[in-house]
Amino acid sequence: MSIFPDILKQEAKTKMLLIILDGLGGLPSKDGRTELETANTPNMDRLAKQFETGMSIPVEIGITPGSGPGHLGVFGYDPTNYPIGRGILEALGIDVDVDNKTVTARCNFCNIDSNGIITDRRAGRIPTEENMRLVKILNEQIKSINNKTVEFYSGIEHRFVFVIRDIETNADVNDTDPQDINIKPLKAISQNDSSNDVAGIINKAANLIGNVLKDEKRANYALFRGISKLPNIETMKERFGIRSVCIATYPMYKGLSKLVGMNIVDGGKTIEDEIDALEKHFDNYDYFFFHVKKTDSYGEDGDFDKKVGVIEQFDALLPKIEALNFDVFAITGDHSTPAIMKTHSFHPVPLLIKHPYPRRNPVNDFSETECLKGSLGTIYAKHIINLMLAGAGRLKKYGA
Amino acid sequence: MSIFPDILKQEAKTKMLLIILDGLGGLPSKDGRTELETANTPNMDRLAKQFETGMSIPVEIGITPGSGPGHLGVFGYDPTNYPIGRGILEALGIDVDVDNKTVTARCNFCNIDSNGIITDRRAGRIPTEENMRLVKILNEQIKSINNKTVEFYSGIEHRFVFVIRDIETNADVNDTDPQDINIKPLKAISQNDSSNDVAGIINKAANLIGNVLKDEKRANYALFRGISKLPNIETMKERFGIRSVCIATYPMYKGLSKLVGMNIVDGGKTIEDEIDALEKHFDNYDYFFFHVKKTDSYGEDGDFDKKVGVIEQFDALLPKIEALNFDVFAITGDHSTPAIMKTHSFHPVPLLIKHPYPRRNPVNDFSETECLKGSLGTIYAKHIINLMLAGAGRLKKYGA
Repeated sequence: MSIFPDILKQEAKTKMLLIILDGLGGLPSKDGRTELETANTPNMDRLAKQFETGMSIPVEIGITPGSGPGHLGVFGYDPTNYPIGRGILEALGIDVDVDNKTVTARCNFCNIDSNGIITDRRAGRIPTEENMRLVKILNEQIKSINNKTVEFYSGIEHRFVFVIRDIETNADVNDTDPQDINIKPLKAISQNDSSNDVAGIINKAANLIGNVLKDEKRANYALFRGISKLPNIETMKERFGIRSVCIATYPMYKGLSKLVGMNIVDGGKTIEDEIDALEKHFDNYDYFFFHVKKTDSYGEDGDFDKKVGVIEQFDALLPKIEALNFDVFAITGDHSTPAIMKTHSFHPVPLLIKHPYPRRNPVNDFSETECLKGSLGTIYAKHIINLMLAGAGRLKKYGA
Repeated sequence: MSIFPDILKQEAKTKMLLIILDGLGGLPSKDGRTELETANTPNMDRLAKQFETGMSIPVEIGITPGSGPGHLGVFGYDPTNYPIGRGILEALGIDVDVDNKTVTARCNFCNIDSNGIITDRRAGRIPTEENMRLVKILNEQIKSINNKTVEFYSGIEHRFVFVIRDIETNADVNDTDPQDINIKPLKAISQNDSSNDVAGIINKAANLIGNVLKDEKRANYALFRGISKLPNIETMKERFGIRSVCIATYPMYKGLSKLVGMNIVDGGKTIEDEIDALEKHFDNYDYFFFHVKKTDSYGEDGDFDKKVGVIEQFDALLPKIEALNFDVFAITGDHSTPAIMKTHSFHPVPLLIKHPYPRRNPVNDFSETECLKGSLGTIYAKHIINLMLAGAGRLKKYGA
């Protein structure tokens, strides 16, 4: 069904805004109320009664999504059709520039003994500073393999990203990380003929890294995981006929937006900065993706009160966004991150859509419990775009 | 989408319990309340408020499922992908041992005249005792056909099961029952080359049965229907990574459980016996399927009060089950069997899931009407397993 927007797209001058409060959905704390139910949110409560609400299933019932699938869904793509490799996601997360000829791998610095046996898969979680020193050495000493440019980028602690440029072929290659110690790293094996080049480069890279690091004390080898290229995804322009832009503060979400062809503009560091960016670029786009990160961060920290605080902060700023008079806007999350779980969860996410033709919505506020009764019902995240486009007059009638 | 549990399965030590009150869903009687709403169920009502409820669509909206599809759904398999032949279902129902080389057919004793024309498709619904006498004769006189062992098993009245052993090929063969009288039985015709052997055996069997029974007064021929082998289904171990066991009192449900690779243990004759079995085998499995039959039986009988009674009997025993401290349990039905309809129906079925991370559930009790408002919403039965596995910590996050 998510094919529909493709064949029905219709031009209009309308403006649409998707606001993701990352990890918005929560679970009841001791007093029986979730983060969103605890937060004082007069503006979202007013909009919930005036417009429409429901619940969004990010990917599938009972399935906990990562950030990649969670966002692809609300962007209007079935996340199960576009798996995103871990190498790509890690690269996007640390702001590595990737294009469709870039191969990425999420790597670990590790320790091997004199027989090549893994003794620590994470090299004792070396400090990030040590990681940066080693990556600098690797970048100086290994600049190309089999005539392809290669690059190393530091992540946190033992993690780094390995990049191969200018690969026209595929990257279907297994991890060299055996996920265990006291055995040797695996050899990279191509899963099809068109991945032979990448497998060859990965195996050479592993040897070269071992040579360069052989006298290092804290990490002397590397394991490769999630070797991958960008998934092949239609842009939002192609799929929905809209000019889209990402306003976010964290590289990961800018990277995910690039996957679907969004433009990226500077979102600054705070929600206020992001609203400034929204105002500044209002005339240039049809669809604005506005990402609020800290709801998820505090959820992951298990900090119920601070997650409540971010929700309240956003709600207080909402009138500034309303003043821009978007024809349609949606407020939801890419998944739930209940503070009591300290992690992403499988629960559906509250959803609010303001559009010009709302049904009467028999709810009292914007919350997990009230959204259950909302006029939109419980829908899959991938269908949110349909409602946004419909409200924005950007979908033709299907059939005569 | 139901592919998810396959690729996300994760090991855990948790225990899960699926309780099927067969045919649980009902319809209002004269006073406007269903069987479940009439029953006094303090324990399920308490659990409904404390944990999560919703409605389960067994197969598809408006579709009335048989026992086979109804159970495959709650076991986590899309029933439309695994059609179960009537021969197989009948064989499972009378406890015939079948494996993946067994061909089964559900047969009718019938009457034909001297020209081979059918005069009664059910031989006047001969008594079961007569059926057993005839089946004994057939087993004595027809032991193999084309070098394959064949067997006959009595069912109720005119019904029996015909079994062919050791068939490696397929069984795509039409019914010989023309579903009408005053015409000849149909010839069995194979629908593809790999079913030629079975078609040949069926045609010979029909002739042999006719010869053996030619002087019998009450039934002198047989019609073959639902010629089938076991569907090829992944086991629950393969699909979800769990050790599963069936605790049931009726052969049909043990047979259906075998289809998905469950172990079968002795469930005794009563719900109390089944609880004993649950306690006895608690340590040996991850997933327990607990089947209560009589809700359906009394529904089929049109006995509203007795169906209410079974629900109350189960509810009173529920604390014994709760005392086992399953990490996750679900209570639902495989379909509705409203007493006023005296048959399976297409209505969704109340669903209750106890798991460690419940949303607040704004309901007053466990009933058709209240479950409509439940925090789980209305979902397909095949997704119940996702929620059970998620609550049991047995599903990895999808994507990073």
